[in-house]
Parts: sequence; C-alpha cells; structure tokens
Amino acid sequence: MTTSFLTLESLSEKLDQLATFSAPGPGVTRLVYDEHWCAAHLWLQREARALGLAATCDAIGNLWLHDPALQPGARVIAVGSHLDSVTRGGRFDGAYGTIAALLLAAELRAQGAPVAAFVTCEEEGSRFPMALTGVRGLLGQLVPSECADKRDANGVRWADALQAAREKGCAAAAPPDGSPVPRVFTASRQLELHIEQGPVLESMGAKLGVVDTIAGYRRVRARLTGEARHAGTTPMDRRRDALAAAAEIVLATEALGIETGAPGVATAGGASAEPGLYNVVPGAAALLLEVRHTDAASLSRMEETLVERARAIASRRGVALELEVQAGEAATPLSAALADEAEAMAAGMAIPYRRMASGAGHDTMAFAQDGVPALMLFTPSRLGISHHPDELTKARDLWVAAAFARELLLAWAKSVA
Amino acid sequence: MTTSFLTLESLSEKLDQLATFSAPGPGVTRLVYDEHWCAAHLWLQREARALGLAATCDAIGNLWLHDPALQPGARVIAVGSHLDSVTRGGRFDGAYGTIAALLLAAELRAQGAPVAAFVTCEEEGSRFPMALTGVRGLLGQLVPSECADKRDANGVRWADALQAAREKGCAAAAPPDGSPVPRVFTASRQLELHIEQGPVLESMGAKLGVVDTIAGYRRVRARLTGEARHAGTTPMDRRRDALAAAAEIVLATEALGIETGAPGVATAGGASAEPGLYNVVPGAAALLLEVRHTDAASLSRMEETLVERARAIASRRGVALELEVQAGEAATPLSAALADEAEAMAAGMAIPYRRMASGAGHDTMAFAQDGVPALMLFTPSRLGISHHPDELTKARDLWVAAAFARELLLAWAKSVA
Repeated sequence: MTTSFLTLESLSEKLDQLATFSAPGPGVTRLVYDEHWCAAHLWLQREARALGLAATCDAIGNLWLHDPALQPGARVIAVGSHLDSVTRGGRFDGAYGTIAALLLAAELRAQGAPVAAFVTCEEEGSRFPMALTGVRGLLGQLVPSECADKRDANGVRWADALQAAREKGCAAAAPPDGSPVPRVFTASRQLELHIEQGPVLESMGAKLGVVDTIAGYRRVRARLTGEARHAGTTPMDRRRDALAAAAEIVLATEALGIETGAPGVATAGGASAEPGLYNVVPGAAALLLEVRHTDAASLSRMEETLVERARAIASRRGVALELEVQAGEAATPLSAALADEAEAMAAGMAIPYRRMASGAGHDTMAFAQDGVPALMLFTPSRLGISHHPDELTKARDLWVAAAFARELLLAWAKSVA
Repeated sequence: MTTSFLTLESLSEKLDQLATFSAPGPGVTRLVYDEHWCAAHLWLQREARALGLAATCDAIGNLWLHDPALQPGARVIAVGSHLDSVTRGGRFDGAYGTIAALLLAAELRAQGAPVAAFVTCEEEGSRFPMALTGVRGLLGQLVPSECADKRDANGVRWADALQAAREKGCAAAAPPDGSPVPRVFTASRQLELHIEQGPVLESMGAKLGVVDTIAGYRRVRARLTGEARHAGTTPMDRRRDALAAAAEIVLATEALGIETGAPGVATAGGASAEPGLYNVVPGAAALLLEVRHTDAASLSRMEETLVERARAIASRRGVALELEVQAGEAATPLSAALADEAEAMAAGMAIPYRRMASGAGHDTMAFAQDGVPALMLFTPSRLGISHHPDELTKARDLWVAAAFARELLLAWAKSVA
C-alpha cells in the first residue's frame, strides 16, 4: 500500500514544527489556552485544511480534524491525543499522537474510511489544578461552570483563559449556563498513539506496545508529627523523630512495590521535614505516596498494605500519623477484543511487539470508561525518559507505529462499516 | 547565709521582665541589635545600676555588669550568658544565665568578691549567618571588619545594625580599622548557668547538671542524584530513586547514633526530594546530617562511619552522592578541677546533681578554648524542650542552681584571691 500523507518525513517534519510552539526555556512548555498553545492550535487547523480536512472546535477548545463531508453528530472512528504539555516537557508526549492522528485522518479520508482525528485541549493538569478536562468535554461530560473559577499559578481564571483562546478562534461558542460541552462527533471506536514514557519496550527490543489496560492509582499524603528537639541534647532513646519514621515509610513503600511485582509499582515521590535544621530532631515530616496497579483488587490491597505499614511504623516510633487519600483513578481495562486483533496484526506484519499495560493515565481512559471500545499503541521511549526535554523516540519507531495504526484503522473501518 | 539580691522572687521577676523584650508572636524573638534586643540591653544597664553595679559595653555590644570599683583590664571571675534568642524561642535560653549573673554580681560585690557578670550580644547565629560572635569579641578574638558585610534576612549589614545599636548606647566606640574588639576585663575563671535544653536531668530527678565537656559536632550536607522517571511507567527494578537512597541514609544515621551510644548522637535534620511529585520517581534528594560526641576521636569515627555508610548505600543503588562537610566544632573539655569541686559541693549541699556533657554549644566553649578554667551549670528543662515557646524550667529549680552558683563563686573568689 502506498501513502501520500503519512510518511516518515511528514511525521518528523510536523512534529518538529509543533515543538516550536512552546514557551522559552528547555524542552516544550505549552499549557492549555496559553499563547503558544493557541498558536499551535491555529497552526493545526491550517495544516488540516491544507491536507483537505475540516477543523472543528468544541466549546472548550478540543479540536476535530475530519473529512468535511462528516456532519456534526456523526459516528466516527476517533484517533488522537492531547495538545498540551507539562512544564519543560518533551517533544513527543501528546504531540506524537496528535500529529499521527492528523496524518492518519488525511490518509484514511483519501481511502474513504470514517476516521476523524481528535486533539484534546488539556490532559496534563499542568496549568490548572485539574486534569483530563479536555476529553471529559469531548465526551459531553463536562459542564464548563465546574472549572470556571479554577486558577492557574498566576491567578488567571480558567474561564478567562478559555475566553481569550476562544476570541483567537481556538474554541466554539460557550454552551448555555449549566449545560455540558456539546459533542461534535460520537466515537464508535477510539485509538491513541503515544510514547511509552517507560523503559519496557526499549529494553526488550520491541517496537510496538499493544496496550490493553491503564493502571489505576491511589495517592496518599502522609503527615508525621513527632517532637522537635535539640539534636545535641536529646539522647537517641528519647527521640520521636518524624523524619526517621518517614524514612522507614519510604523504604516500606519501595518494598511494597518490589514485593507486588509488575505491573504494580509503589513510589514515595516527595518528602520534607520540619524545621529542617542540622541541630533539631525533626518534629514533623510529610510524604507523597502512590501505588499503581492494573488490577482493581490488587490496587486496593496495595493501598491497604501501605496504610497498615505506615501506621505500624508510626505507632512503634510513637509518632502521630495523618493519612489523607488524594484523588485516584480506577484501573481501566481497554478493549481486549481490539487488543487481540492488534496483536494478531502485529504478529502478521512481523513487528516486534509487546502486549502491555500503561502505568500512566491517558485520554483513552475516559473513552473506555464511557463505553467506547478503545485501544492504545505505544512506541519505545529512549531510557524511559518522559516529561523532560530529553524525551526521545526515534523517527523510524514513530513511523512504524503510525503505519501500523493505518492498517489497524482500515481494518476497523471495514468491521464498523 | 542570707541574701538580699538573689532571691527566687527577684530571679523570677526579672526573667519575666526580660521576656517582654521580644518581637510580637509566640515565644521570645530577640535578635542581636534589633529594637527589642536594644531595649533589653538598655533595661539591663538600668537594672545593674539600680543594684549598685556599673554597666560597661564593649565595641560590639557585649555588656559587663560589675563593681564600679573594678577598672578596665582587671582580672575578674566572669559569670554570664547571652542576650539574644532564636526566632520564636523560649524565655530561659541565655536569659536565665544573664539574669542569674546580674543578681550574682550584685550579691557577690556586696560580699567583696571580684565577680563580674558578662552578657554576650550574640550566641545563637539567629540573625546573621555566624554564631558566637559575641564571646569572640569579648575575648579579644574578633576583628569587626570580618563581620561587617554579613547580612541578615532583610539584607541589613551587620556593621549597620551594630552602628544603630551603638547610637542607642548599646555598644562602645568602634576600634581602629583592622583591630580586634578591645577586652574590657580578663576572666580568671568563668561560669555559665544555662537550662539543659535536653531531658536528662528532669528524667533522672536531678536538679543540677555539672557540665565538664561540651560535645563537638560535624555536619554534612548530602546531595543524591538518581534518575527522575515517571512513577507509573518505570518498573521497580529499573529505578535509581534518590529519595529511597536518602531514606536508607536517614536510618543509617539514626542507627549510628544508637550504636555509638551516649554521649554520641547522630541526626538527619533535613530532607527534601525533587521534583517532589506523586507521579515522579525522585531524581534528586538532599539531607542535612549531623554527628556529635564529647570525645574528639569518637567524633571523627562517627563522621567517617557516616560517610562510609552513605557512600555504600548510594553505590549499591547506583545513585550519585556528593557530600559537603559544613562548619563543625571540636569537642571542648571544660575544667575537670572545677567540675570536681562543684560535684563535691553539690554532694555536700545534698543537691541531686549529675555530672554531664553538654550536647549543645555555648559561649563557655570559647572561654575554655581560650585557656580560661571554665564550668557550666545546668538546670532541668521540662520535657527537654528548648528553642521553642514551651521552654520551661521551674522557678525553684532556677533558684537552686543560682544559689548553688553563689556558693561556688564565693569559694572560687577565696581560692583565686
């Protein structure tokens, strides 16, 4: 099969162009509704038109790039990812899935398949204190007034930032007060291409990840209170050292991840101690703890074990412990049938692949939770680095997965038709 | 023996008055040369005069309260402590030794003993980034230009803060450029009364600590560098987690203190992790580590063991470790002969006492290091709390130690005479 739109060169070139829409500094910083995001959004609309597609915004700035013949409300095979980045992130997270989707939509339109590219406005939660608002809007689940008064680090309201983007042509008119964002299209199936953001594919020499589950996570903020005492005058056996207790909990968290084994992981991501001086036994300490697993029961067991261990450590040391459970996500199975089909196709095409879970959350979770048969395809990430300027996937690996997606989408178009 | 100046009531009342010279907020905040410190300084001078003493400032604001008959340059038995506090500290640290010395100087002058009270301007290092500048000036060891350009948290220069205090009458004229602060008196012996700032005396039911050593300390800043990776996508066996390595070092530090045993202690006082997010394996972590011991060889062994353990942990985990050794203090023996004499006297007076080391540094270190026969007396500290608004020693305990000091100083006066 020949192709005119989806080539290694077009993919690389457009990814390079998209990476230029960024705040200054290392890596890519393109936060929802900011000037760089708006410029990227308008550029994407122009690129889509140049490829013969129409570009349709929804009321919060999600974008569909599609055959102009498709009328609003149509059922489409949706392929896409998100336009926003983290602060000082990489060139591929979200961007790869966006550019691949643009080219796939153009390519498959030419072949008569009802495939539309979606570009969510926001996935990362890197500007406003909420994540996945884009895909929730896309699926008709978001009432904009929920978000209106959230503020970014500079105090700018979400609603004001959106309105400014709307005035630039990056969002459609707001819905009536209290109404959800109207859907542009309805997805019959959904696909997202994304870099792995982990080291598994690279370390196994695989070129493609067929993702059948997205891990759920639980997050716990632990606050320990002991006694702040002079470090020179307080004998070791008379201390209630909040940091020493916290250190035990950090190691117990790590041990839990190791014992649970893949796909379970457990992480202590943050730690602090007060007052934080050489000569004071810390009277307080705080930890950010997270467990992830693809299996709901295993995830619950991990959280329970973590809490039990933390309580036992604090209790043995006479340190008070407060645990605050933060926002989590349930483990989300994607479509096993679509994953089976993709596996068979990858094997048939002799692409070294691995069926796997995603440890990170993605827009695709929301589609799957909404009942849409959904699938993700991963490309290898060099050294597993992501959310960092050093994020890198080889151009050839990006193209292999996109070319595979073209075949897969064509097959889907046949079975949906 | 009857007394007219040193009574439980006078001691309590003047301590209450001194505590009123403080910045607003919980506890006592009286930082060198600030308005509250100056007001306390001028009040002390007035109190001394009211008790028949002269008040003589040196060029950086140390204060001597003494028999007006004593001429500058005289040899005196010096008793005193410091006027400054930490931020939101207690009512007793420094203040107790200061007020006790004022009353003892008045009392012993009446009995013809050559005892002078010293009040150092600064001991805590709580305003400018240097400690023990007061006593170094008092002993003729400080050239003011060394400190002139140090700045406080508001950017105020040490020399400017001192000059403002001088203009209020809290310091004598500056010495010629490049000259050390001239000494007012020379100490033949030195005594400091201080609260213990630890729990030992209270827990043993002792009323008096006879302090024969001040522990030395070494401080190490540890910086660990691993790899920041997505916590959801990076398997446990592919992590180089800087915080997990730091946690092991915190526990190894604690274990070292426990194994060494009293008077050795080891403390991890501060900890941080970067980037400090739930979903990122920490790529960097930092620790503040301190070891203390009264024996120089033991102190060195503790530091060496700490460094070895930290290196082994980091190496096993593939995490880079930088260790930066910070300012330390050598262990300082005080006068064993004076401690023996005080022990015998306490036993004779049936005061429950304990011969002990000080885990914290004090002005007395500088006298002892200067060759002055020196001693400290400790009072119990409730729960060992210090450098905190809850710092508390019972009025009766404060008085017992001060009354004991009166007898001790009288005995010293006889043997020095």
